Amino acid sequence: MDPIINAVLEPKSIAIVGASADPEKIGYKVVANLIAGGYEGAIYPINPKSEEILGHKCYASVKDVPYVIDAAIITVPAKFVHGVTQECGEKGVKGISIITSGFSEVGEHELEEQVVKTAREFGMRIIGPNIIGVLSNSGKMNASFASQLPLNGTAGLISQSGALLIAMIAATYTRRVGFDKMLSIGNQSDLDFADLVTYLAEDDVTSCITLYIEGIKDGARFMEAARNCDKPIIALKAGTSEHGAAAAASHTGSLAGSSKVYEAAFKQVGVTQADDLNDLFDRTLALSLQPRMQGDNLLILTNGGGVGVLATDAAEKYGLPLKFAPPEVQAELKKHMPDFGSAKNPVDITGGAGLKGYYEGVKYSYAHPWVDGMAILYCETAVTNPLEIAEAIYKALQDSGTTGKPVTVSFVGGERCDTATAWLIEKGIPTYNAPDIAVKALATLRQDQLMSETTHSAPYKPTDINPEKAREIIAGARAKGRDALTEVEAKHVFAAYGLPVTPTELAKTEEEAIKLANEIGFPIVMKIVSPDILHKSDAGAVKVNIKNDDDVREAWKVIMENSLKYKADAEIDGMAVQEMAPWSTEVIVGSVNDATFGPTVMFGLGGIFVEVLKDVTFRVAPIDEDEALRMQNEIKSAQILHGARGESPRDMAKLASILAHYSYMIYDLKDEIAESDANPCLVYEEGKGVAVVDARIILTKK
Amino acid sequence: MDPIINAVLEPKSIAIVGASADPEKIGYKVVANLIAGGYEGAIYPINPKSEEILGHKCYASVKDVPYVIDAAIITVPAKFVHGVTQECGEKGVKGISIITSGFSEVGEHELEEQVVKTAREFGMRIIGPNIIGVLSNSGKMNASFASQLPLNGTAGLISQSGALLIAMIAATYTRRVGFDKMLSIGNQSDLDFADLVTYLAEDDVTSCITLYIEGIKDGARFMEAARNCDKPIIALKAGTSEHGAAAAASHTGSLAGSSKVYEAAFKQVGVTQADDLNDLFDRTLALSLQPRMQGDNLLILTNGGGVGVLATDAAEKYGLPLKFAPPEVQAELKKHMPDFGSAKNPVDITGGAGLKGYYEGVKYSYAHPWVDGMAILYCETAVTNPLEIAEAIYKALQDSGTTGKPVTVSFVGGERCDTATAWLIEKGIPTYNAPDIAVKALATLRQDQLMSETTHSAPYKPTDINPEKAREIIAGARAKGRDALTEVEAKHVFAAYGLPVTPTELAKTEEEAIKLANEIGFPIVMKIVSPDILHKSDAGAVKVNIKNDDDVREAWKVIMENSLKYKADAEIDGMAVQEMAPWSTEVIVGSVNDATFGPTVMFGLGGIFVEVLKDVTFRVAPIDEDEALRMQNEIKSAQILHGARGESPRDMAKLASILAHYSYMIYDLKDEIAESDANPCLVYEEGKGVAVVDARIILTKK
Repeated sequence: MDPIINAVLEPKSIAIVGASADPEKIGYKVVANLIAGGYEGAIYPINPKSEEILGHKCYASVKDVPYVIDAAIITVPAKFVHGVTQECGEKGVKGISIITSGFSEVGEHELEEQVVKTAREFGMRIIGPNIIGVLSNSGKMNASFASQLPLNGTAGLISQSGALLIAMIAATYTRRVGFDKMLSIGNQSDLDFADLVTYLAEDDVTSCITLYIEGIKDGARFMEAARNCDKPIIALKAGTSEHGAAAAASHTGSLAGSSKVYEAAFKQVGVTQADDLNDLFDRTLALSLQPRMQGDNLLILTNGGGVGVLATDAAEKYGLPLKFAPPEVQAELKKHMPDFGSAKNPVDITGGAGLKGYYEGVKYSYAHPWVDGMAILYCETAVTNPLEIAEAIYKALQDSGTTGKPVTVSFVGGERCDTATAWLIEKGIPTYNAPDIAVKALATLRQDQLMSETTHSAPYKPTDINPEKAREIIAGARAKGRDALTEVEAKHVFAAYGLPVTPTELAKTEEEAIKLANEIGFPIVMKIVSPDILHKSDAGAVKVNIKNDDDVREAWKVIMENSLKYKADAEIDGMAVQEMAPWSTEVIVGSVNDATFGPTVMFGLGGIFVEVLKDVTFRVAPIDEDEALRMQNEIKSAQILHGARGESPRDMAKLASILAHYSYMIYDLKDEIAESDANPCLVYEEGKGVAVVDARIILTKK
Repeated sequence: MDPIINAVLEPKSIAIVGASADPEKIGYKVVANLIAGGYEGAIYPINPKSEEILGHKCYASVKDVPYVIDAAIITVPAKFVHGVTQECGEKGVKGISIITSGFSEVGEHELEEQVVKTAREFGMRIIGPNIIGVLSNSGKMNASFASQLPLNGTAGLISQSGALLIAMIAATYTRRVGFDKMLSIGNQSDLDFADLVTYLAEDDVTSCITLYIEGIKDGARFMEAARNCDKPIIALKAGTSEHGAAAAASHTGSLAGSSKVYEAAFKQVGVTQADDLNDLFDRTLALSLQPRMQGDNLLILTNGGGVGVLATDAAEKYGLPLKFAPPEVQAELKKHMPDFGSAKNPVDITGGAGLKGYYEGVKYSYAHPWVDGMAILYCETAVTNPLEIAEAIYKALQDSGTTGKPVTVSFVGGERCDTATAWLIEKGIPTYNAPDIAVKALATLRQDQLMSETTHSAPYKPTDINPEKAREIIAGARAKGRDALTEVEAKHVFAAYGLPVTPTELAKTEEEAIKLANEIGFPIVMKIVSPDILHKSDAGAVKVNIKNDDDVREAWKVIMENSLKYKADAEIDGMAVQEMAPWSTEVIVGSVNDATFGPTVMFGLGGIFVEVLKDVTFRVAPIDEDEALRMQNEIKSAQILHGARGESPRDMAKLASILAHYSYMIYDLKDEIAESDANPCLVYEEGKGVAVVDARIILTKK
């Protein structure tokens, strides 16, 4: 645990700069909230005009405090913040928490940078500016201007919206989702999502990390922090729509990034993405209270056929389709229900089921080794008391002698169900008001287990690459003043990264073309190489299926004529002479440099799949072959790679290797490559490899 | 309003057959609930062993009651129900409500049919059996064994799950969704979804119809009822997953049908499909309280940037993407917020916004003609009182002088927000605990408006069809003992329904083939015609691009040899001689007879689109060209029809006409055609039409 970050977030002594005796002022509220929360450290109000605030001696400056100060909470107007920071540094304050707004979020970037620079000079860390503050139940610390601590629990929240954080604190009580720590992250001038995720990952009390994100500043650092975290992380990413991203940007001053790339990054490092605010609460509840689910066998037990069917539908929708329970489980369960009940799965103990039915059914099922997780459903009836049912369920789980399997509950009904729900949650059982939510929560615990199995190791790097060679080729193009490579150059860069490009060489003369064609072997393809002619086919500057020397001569003549017809003053480097690869399944591999996450690789099938269906998937580079195989299986048209319509399966292993190599190419050369694609790549049948037929690299602006 | 149905559902006098003095018995509960609910009609308990129940004189039989009985509620065991029904008929009871279970839902189909038959003989209608009963707030009638009436409101529920209905009654109080009527539909032995939808459509109090459906019995009747209903209908269809459908079937004894076809039918008749139970409640609230939204201009007003962004994302997700407000709206709104607020849309009046900010912002925006609907968001803050904000919002709407536009509200926070939420709902403003739900509710009001514009008229029927001719061809095949048509026959049936099949005739001899080929015009295609060879290509029994008489002779020889090699004893009718249509965009049109909805037409692009991507869409037949165009635009690959990748747009108008004709063919001939497809159809560019190249018709078993 970083001791400085720890000092800012769990200080033993706090100075409140801008403390006030006026109850309307934030400087008053923070002091009052610290006291009300039961904070056990030292409190030093700082205000040159007061002697004492709320029973605590007041100082004119932090420098006047004769004791060690771990953290200073700053509430003075923005224009005074830099001066205060300087004083804090001189005093030896370890870190500062800047509640004050009026910095980068309203365009005052310079002011913010100044403060950060000064803090860094003194080795101080900053949370904020533009925050509500920091809250901790276990630390009995409400170092914020929110009027209360959240409902006690073990989730940890990091919120980029202060207003939402305040509203969420109130909501924790009505929704019964308990949090230990809540951190308002503000403008992330210094401490960012990565730092705070790492902090909560190492925190003893926190069991699950809950994020409200508008924009991450450094995607790579965030990914590393999340990858190293072995607690569940769930994130609500706001600004996923175009208009929403614009609204988010205007709101927090941070880049919203592409929502597709966020989605990819979350998947790569095992972050569950929440669908909406209720979903964030609902799934946080399960992730913070229950263990991960170790297998796919979900058992649903219900007293109502209707909710059983709805839960079954949800199980399929959320990726955990039901299977029938094994015969011995069915036989045993049948003993605890009326004849017209069903023991199959969903197990319907029927509306008449009382305490005994629930107790026996749950106790037996939960203990059975076939069952990996349980969703227990209850529909309020006239003849049962929800609270008693809740007690029976809890007792059954206790008495089962089993632990380590997740269970969720749904109680559909009115006030009595709400009471029972509260009671069960208090006992650590996530309980919801609808069956599908209970199932979704369980599916999340399964998904989180699966992600935890694959996302914690960094990708392994291929060794058969030659970065120097690639940089040399790029330097050559830059030397000629170009910011795009020719196809021949791009293919040479690809080849340096182990990509199987179809042999392609530049011929400067007709004779050279004939020589190269014979070296490569007929049939060949010829194309113009000119920085002025990007759309070569449109210009009539491509000829395929060239079979002999005479064809080469004819092609040279026609391509040259067409090119000059297309653009009379085109600068012409010569012609690409290229092996003609036999046609096969077309895929596209491409890359962009995402503003947040950096080099990102895209994969999809070519032609209509990418152009019409947008059936593509992304990953932040670098990736290894395992991740690349997941990409291939993730596209909607994956079946084509597995061999659809009587075709044999494609060489997915080789394709995975190529995606991994490609990802390292764009990662290593991110300062040079802005965009690229290998389009098309031809994927042959299993064992027959891949050919990269065309290559494009656009360089970064320098 | 059907007077008999009315008598069952809104009786002026009720006999309770099986009434009991034992508070544990359903026969007691129904009488007690009628009294507790304040029922103002006559109550006649029927029980030969009692003198009086709960202050009401008891009779030995309905026949002993000396007054008119509108409805009899039957609670006696299943084996006595038929006898009671007979007595009710003899007494002249108008209709019966059978609470008793133990009929078709447990396989006792005969018992149920007997009861229905007897009731019909007397002209009585039945609701049930296997129901909770019928509840009506406006009728002060709790004719059920559920212990209370639902929260008063204007929605009307029809539920196929009794257990869920009871739980939902309790939930109406905590979720604050008010219902006037709740009808438990049970086994639908007589009155079914269609009857009850029609009843609620004509009911004065009901503003919105809410359905929980496991299986509809007669899809066509349901569709007609929904089409004729001009109130919003929202349905939660349980059993959409395969395992869920199986669970639903075991539970209610009704066929679950294909969820794809349900989806299609709902769309066709303007039924909103709920995603889950909470969604059913949430959207019922909006549909029952607010008018439909007349245009696409949604304005979001918020005090928190975070929830504003989440709402903006939701707007796009639910099909109502935000637009920036016009400059004059922005200029006016700017006056009512701090400098750092945003008037664009979402309108962010900022966290400091108090009563005045909300009041002025809402009043101005709601009245502005640009705004078609509003979502008003509030995040609980330390400095505002949610209830006062709620009052300000309501007063602003009242004072705006505008009506007829929908508005929804979201209050994110704790208990004080819950209070404010309850207050606003009481005033008729649907209010939710998350911004996306408020936006989704508004989007539903927009969607419902759009559906109401297209779904109320029955499809118009084409006139250029010849059903007699089609039936004649089918009869010919049946006469030969076949239950599949040959390609030539199928094409003739298609042609009788105005479908542009490529000219195809049956040649019985080589000479006939030459004659036909010359009549049709070269090039032609030849294929074997044999009931024993269905996979003609596999048998080598298809030859394309036949250019002259000699080619015909050669093809005849080869096809005949290959066919006999494929199946030595194949019965061979001859060969199909067919025009060779120039290749173009391939689509597939097909049909199945759905168990619930009957003949259903399927449409999609051919090849990988249907086989790998399953990119197809369904409609229950018949459809007209408008609906057919919606089908074409609905598939994911629709862009290909509009002209993708430099291709010109396809002839979507002609394709629509073909889909409509096709739908009438399968509709008219539903007793004859079990399955069919036109695969492929080739769609040429705009104005150039469509060619149906291959045809297949499987007949119903007779």
